[in-house]
Amino acid sequence: MNFKIKRLELLNALAKVSRAVSMKSPLPVLTGIKFDLKEDELILTGSDSDITIQTSIHENIEIIEKGSVVLSSRYILEIIKKIDSEDVHIYIVDGTLTRIEGASSRFDLNGTSYIDYPRIDLNKSGVNLQMKATDLKEAIEQTSFATSEKETRPVLTGVNFKAKDHVLECIATDSYRLAKRILNIDSDVSFNIIIPKKSLIEISRIIEKDELIDLYVSDRKVLFIFDSVLIQTRLIDGSYPDTSRLIPNDFDYSMTIDSTSLLNSIDRASLLSNEQTNIIKLSMNEDQVMLSSYSQEIGSVEENLSRAFYKGQPLNISFSAKYLNDAIKSINGDKVRVLFTGEMKPFIIKDFEKEDIIQLVLPVRTY
Amino acid sequence: MNFKIKRLELLNALAKVSRAVSMKSPLPVLTGIKFDLKEDELILTGSDSDITIQTSIHENIEIIEKGSVVLSSRYILEIIKKIDSEDVHIYIVDGTLTRIEGASSRFDLNGTSYIDYPRIDLNKSGVNLQMKATDLKEAIEQTSFATSEKETRPVLTGVNFKAKDHVLECIATDSYRLAKRILNIDSDVSFNIIIPKKSLIEISRIIEKDELIDLYVSDRKVLFIFDSVLIQTRLIDGSYPDTSRLIPNDFDYSMTIDSTSLLNSIDRASLLSNEQTNIIKLSMNEDQVMLSSYSQEIGSVEENLSRAFYKGQPLNISFSAKYLNDAIKSINGDKVRVLFTGEMKPFIIKDFEKEDIIQLVLPVRTY
Repeated sequence: MNFKIKRLELLNALAKVSRAVSMKSPLPVLTGIKFDLKEDELILTGSDSDITIQTSIHENIEIIEKGSVVLSSRYILEIIKKIDSEDVHIYIVDGTLTRIEGASSRFDLNGTSYIDYPRIDLNKSGVNLQMKATDLKEAIEQTSFATSEKETRPVLTGVNFKAKDHVLECIATDSYRLAKRILNIDSDVSFNIIIPKKSLIEISRIIEKDELIDLYVSDRKVLFIFDSVLIQTRLIDGSYPDTSRLIPNDFDYSMTIDSTSLLNSIDRASLLSNEQTNIIKLSMNEDQVMLSSYSQEIGSVEENLSRAFYKGQPLNISFSAKYLNDAIKSINGDKVRVLFTGEMKPFIIKDFEKEDIIQLVLPVRTY
Repeated sequence: MNFKIKRLELLNALAKVSRAVSMKSPLPVLTGIKFDLKEDELILTGSDSDITIQTSIHENIEIIEKGSVVLSSRYILEIIKKIDSEDVHIYIVDGTLTRIEGASSRFDLNGTSYIDYPRIDLNKSGVNLQMKATDLKEAIEQTSFATSEKETRPVLTGVNFKAKDHVLECIATDSYRLAKRILNIDSDVSFNIIIPKKSLIEISRIIEKDELIDLYVSDRKVLFIFDSVLIQTRLIDGSYPDTSRLIPNDFDYSMTIDSTSLLNSIDRASLLSNEQTNIIKLSMNEDQVMLSSYSQEIGSVEENLSRAFYKGQPLNISFSAKYLNDAIKSINGDKVRVLFTGEMKPFIIKDFEKEDIIQLVLPVRTY
């Protein structure tokens, strides 16, 4: 293997594929990035066996001699980041010992043979679906935070992607709250899968621009194909709970408020609340809406939401400040509607105008 | 206690005094800030009993009724930071329960009686010395990093301030390296004290502008008086080792180089070195200066310091990359001189022009 390349081109590619690499991988070779230098391109692959990211470089590269090697993700990334040179020259000196040269620096890095790297099948198989990268990124950001952190019910640690009749639903819940995003899709495909949260976060981080993504969905994995990057993730086994009946349709009480002033009031109201439970209370009637919290040890707060508009009988409801905060932030609109069916019933948060995102929060009992 | 105040005026003062407060104080009342509202000023005090910071507010305050209370540093700071109002109204509702009101927010914070707060004597006693705040800040930054992290020799955890014959020497060492800054002072005073590193860091953080500071040095404490802030710190007991004979005066070898290119080369050369020891090697002769490191497991680096100017017999010397890096950064000059007396002898780093700062590093033996 022997090639010269523009440093920034390589750095950009390494930064992407290294996202899949885990330093704690039980298989040592997977802490590295596989360099495959072909006749006309350099293919870089990173994987932790759950998620695999691959990209290739065709331009700004001078290929001198084909070859392959696996280089420590951490060290090669740091070297290419810090080397003070526009171009770098990378070649195998002996066996897997790889030299990286640029300006006045010369690094000799011990590599691993590419033969030890697991064969990862990145074939296009299964159902195909095309969507806008920014739509996918938004759907991930609006749902993934609501997945469960606990491993007791593994299916809840992922986001449920359910496609049918030109509609894709993305649903996440930790059983105390639920986030649902609805997307219209062109393809007439049908599937019901659970994608690990960690994989989705990495995919969302890699999406930078408004391009088209091809998805290939099969039983055990999904392949995302971007302009120059391939990401493949395993799926979570099991069937996702049916959440459709959880979300009420009729509401007796509703509050409308601008998001920023509600977020700021939640922030202040939760300042003195118990850090573990972080419970705050909404007290609403048609004249006044108050947000409050109380801690015997520390003190109490009352926030007067003078800009809220409330319709319905007087209602008091207590819940986690963090959950309401997460829900409003994910909606990312100027104004939100909060809709209630009763004191101990789940309530939902929607954008004032759009209907494609629904956040649901369960209240808590306070004494 | 009852007063109205401009929020930013109070926030600024609280941010300063809270620096002295430790959340882990064994005396619960010291996790709070003491509010002393006098006829014409509000005095705020924070302390962890090692260091005490006090400031007073005379302007932008409307005093309605005198009084005192201790409020949790953490909560009062957060409240004043987050309350969405230009002015805040603070008053005692009942006993030590204190209300903080602003715009649509109302906080009731449980306080502690000021009677429980320890009496801290902030009298001006001992030897007086005046200096520029920015000189003190610079001297702290140039020395404090070289103090010892280990408690086995407590005197080495502080910086030695030694005044005599219109010269103030600030010295720190962890016995593997030494930092020394020399300042000329107007006052003809004489003392030899050790100030805890932690106190110095807080003092340096509070210094924002080029003002004059008054120091009052006594046997057990130093009081620093700024424009509107008083900082008092305890001293470390014991006598500081005499370090004057450690620093050589004659050198057989010298290297001159611009700081930035040396810092960048150190950074790269230490990339592949053992993380614990972080040892790199300088190999110098009059034709070439090389910086290198080697790790059997990871690989090796060679940096050619083409911009270095070396004078002397060929010399190889190994040392901690971190120590040389710290030393050069503290000097903060465009160009440095590195002066050697032999392969296993301490070497010193100086600014190319100034003589008031000396950094010394001990080499290590490599095999």
